[in-house]
Amino acid sequence: MDQEDKKLLSELLPFWKNLKENEKRQVMDHTILHAYKNGEQVHGGYEDCTGVIAVKKGRIRVYLLSEEGKEVTLFRLLENDICLLSASCILRNISFDIYVDAEGDTELFVLNSSVYDKLAKENPAVGNFMTDLISMRFSEAMWVMEQILFMKLDKRLAMFLLEQANLENGDVITLTHEQIAGHMGSAREVISRMLKYFSNEGIVNVSRKGIKIVNRKKLTEYL
Amino acid sequence: MDQEDKKLLSELLPFWKNLKENEKRQVMDHTILHAYKNGEQVHGGYEDCTGVIAVKKGRIRVYLLSEEGKEVTLFRLLENDICLLSASCILRNISFDIYVDAEGDTELFVLNSSVYDKLAKENPAVGNFMTDLISMRFSEAMWVMEQILFMKLDKRLAMFLLEQANLENGDVITLTHEQIAGHMGSAREVISRMLKYFSNEGIVNVSRKGIKIVNRKKLTEYL
Repeated sequence: MDQEDKKLLSELLPFWKNLKENEKRQVMDHTILHAYKNGEQVHGGYEDCTGVIAVKKGRIRVYLLSEEGKEVTLFRLLENDICLLSASCILRNISFDIYVDAEGDTELFVLNSSVYDKLAKENPAVGNFMTDLISMRFSEAMWVMEQILFMKLDKRLAMFLLEQANLENGDVITLTHEQIAGHMGSAREVISRMLKYFSNEGIVNVSRKGIKIVNRKKLTEYL
Repeated sequence: MDQEDKKLLSELLPFWKNLKENEKRQVMDHTILHAYKNGEQVHGGYEDCTGVIAVKKGRIRVYLLSEEGKEVTLFRLLENDICLLSASCILRNISFDIYVDAEGDTELFVLNSSVYDKLAKENPAVGNFMTDLISMRFSEAMWVMEQILFMKLDKRLAMFLLEQANLENGDVITLTHEQIAGHMGSAREVISRMLKYFSNEGIVNVSRKGIKIVNRKKLTEYL
């Protein structure tokens, strides 16, 4: 890492100012900057102890994956976000598998798990940060769960399309129905049926190029 | 609380030995022992800041509740277990509503939220305990989510029936189909249909008195 990257990393870590000089050095010495291509796997389940991730550039998707290959997106992390779950090996009591993929060209700071673990044990500021961050991800995951369990599919799909269009900076969603189903923990047939309904209502245009939102106002009414 | 209860409480708290004398006194002075009847609500969502709960006797059920009244059980806490989510007001970043009911006659130690919050901030042993416990509950909730999303219903129901029979110390499950559906985040019709199938297969007997497991071996094959 060059000086600029080191400066950026220190700004990304909320507990940086609470670290002692030798702790700061340890962080810098054990962090590497990694580049990932669109769709590349960053972290692959419990066995994989990638480390603590901070997003320098791009976006990552954190998801659950079933033995049959079914996926559910838990959350996305954007620039400046930090992910602890990718250091599952140091998180006592975290025993579920998460998977992390890059979305778009992505650069990540990856801090060595055991160095981080040592810091968290010795420095209360790091420990408190951990509790806060895990609580936040817990809440986000529960929000997804409540959506899946309690929310009607039309509302969920409307929310997903608006969010995805936002991520793609426009009105077009370039995902397949299969991919949307994966993100939402649903089945392709169910998503296709609902998209057809939205299409009949003049809310979206569905074509080979993707899904285009043509009546944003009407789509928003489903929220 | 009498001396015996105080002794029990000190044994229930894993960080007790790491507390200073004045901290121990604070815990004892701000903990009350509460008795609940079967089905009574212990904690009712985010607004309700019940406090940190330790189960002295009985059992509590922690669940999500939708606006339409649909329920999903996240986990159950038995004797000696501790619940932090019932002190949601002090958990930064925990923003989802959980509900807690007593199952059977239950006695709970309830430690005041703000006293606990102060402890957690000042004493690293309490802070570490918090991270561990929240991670554990996060994992348990994710396990439930994976079950709901990925597991086939026959397997889930088999697992639920065996677990519930265990809790009821025998082979009989005295819940209605509606209640089972609530626990599993499913619909009553779906559960009834699956129970009918299990019944036809000679695995359970379904009657007004409840569901009796008559072929435990065959039921276990679904796991």
